[in-house]
Amino acid sequence: MHSVHFTAETSANGVLERDFAVGEIPGVLWSPASRPDRAPLVLMGHGGGTHKRWPAMTGRARSLVTGCGFHVAVIDAPGHGDRPRTPYDEQEIAALYRAREAGEPEGPIVVRYNAHLAERAVPEWRATLDALQELPEIGAEGPVGYFGLNMATAIGVPFVAGDPRITAAVFGLHWPDALAETAKRITVPIEFMLQWDDEHIPRASGLALFDAFASREKTLHANAGRHKELPRFESDSAVRFFARHLGRTAPSPA
Amino acid sequence: MHSVHFTAETSANGVLERDFAVGEIPGVLWSPASRPDRAPLVLMGHGGGTHKRWPAMTGRARSLVTGCGFHVAVIDAPGHGDRPRTPYDEQEIAALYRAREAGEPEGPIVVRYNAHLAERAVPEWRATLDALQELPEIGAEGPVGYFGLNMATAIGVPFVAGDPRITAAVFGLHWPDALAETAKRITVPIEFMLQWDDEHIPRASGLALFDAFASREKTLHANAGRHKELPRFESDSAVRFFARHLGRTAPSPA
Repeated sequence: MHSVHFTAETSANGVLERDFAVGEIPGVLWSPASRPDRAPLVLMGHGGGTHKRWPAMTGRARSLVTGCGFHVAVIDAPGHGDRPRTPYDEQEIAALYRAREAGEPEGPIVVRYNAHLAERAVPEWRATLDALQELPEIGAEGPVGYFGLNMATAIGVPFVAGDPRITAAVFGLHWPDALAETAKRITVPIEFMLQWDDEHIPRASGLALFDAFASREKTLHANAGRHKELPRFESDSAVRFFARHLGRTAPSPA
Repeated sequence: MHSVHFTAETSANGVLERDFAVGEIPGVLWSPASRPDRAPLVLMGHGGGTHKRWPAMTGRARSLVTGCGFHVAVIDAPGHGDRPRTPYDEQEIAALYRAREAGEPEGPIVVRYNAHLAERAVPEWRATLDALQELPEIGAEGPVGYFGLNMATAIGVPFVAGDPRITAAVFGLHWPDALAETAKRITVPIEFMLQWDDEHIPRASGLALFDAFASREKTLHANAGRHKELPRFESDSAVRFFARHLGRTAPSPA
């Protein structure tokens, strides 16, 4: 088992930001600069084609740290960010670009490639969580949330279904094909985001994935707009969702 | 045109509560006890079989006043609260109870009766808003919201569609039958609530009503649970929605 190896540290506006590695997996851990005794942890996954420091990641991390006092960790998914691509990665990415240029549906390629990435990523998330829980400011007892849309839902659904340490999750913006059966094993509270006019994911498909979760408490947030037009206020909503379920103070209003 | 006639006034915990009448229509106006210069107004409608002081009404009013500094007005719908029932009201209520006891669908009766009530209620809401806007602490220039679920959606959709003074609305928990065509004329921001396991309103019907609104900004909140199990956190969400759209400070966290 690998430990967390910190490689850089900065601090600004009340947020401590530490680059880390767990074996070959690079990540960032954001924490309250005041370093409280212990605080809940939210694991965040980035979307396809982006990486651990994408603006959506750093913005959400800052909200969760300053609003709730949580720790937030993001790692680069396989083939993303600072990580090498395999020949299979290159092949699938090329297929995706070809489909886009030809105006063909992206769904079949994304669904297939994300399912492949999930097989590589789920053990990495488990190892990362194992290592993070060794840190005294996180520990093995505290609640853990998972927040991931798009590709990070494809990775997060099998991860959360198989890891009882995750007690609340935010998912969304994905097809149900490879995920619905696994989602039926998830019973923790869920917030699920869907774009009502998504040009890639048919509305009925998005609704079917939401429907599949076995969670007694699950909330669908469907917004008018296309795939990439998720309103910014949904990030605030996700922060409040984690504040409610991971047991800390609700965030201050923006 | 009738003016607002105040009949009683109390004040507690920073909230001023005034009973009023506009002609024959009884209502309650909640305001910040500090009486600021001017503040936005939220009109709230109660559900079928309840009235202007139902706990859901007083709770939401308190959140909007203390969290946002808004004025909030509720009136008794025709045949509800302090208002007399017509023979037709009695007949429809009896039909509803018979259907319930026989285990028959309530939908056809509720849809028909609510459409009838809306015809009586919409002119009353217009007259009430006319009168409230004469008050110096509200005025005719400020933004106005409408918040009504169940029967108050049946009344609110035609009211909001026909009154350009309403600039944001929260609706939900209703069948589309008598409302979808009218909803197509509504373009203001909407938050819409639906229960995913509603035993009265088929899921596809609830989704169809949400779909009908022409609003560029509209958000569906669908929660697991039956018709009467709307989670309490959705009230907080509605308060934040109005804070965002009526242009005042977001509420403090609970």
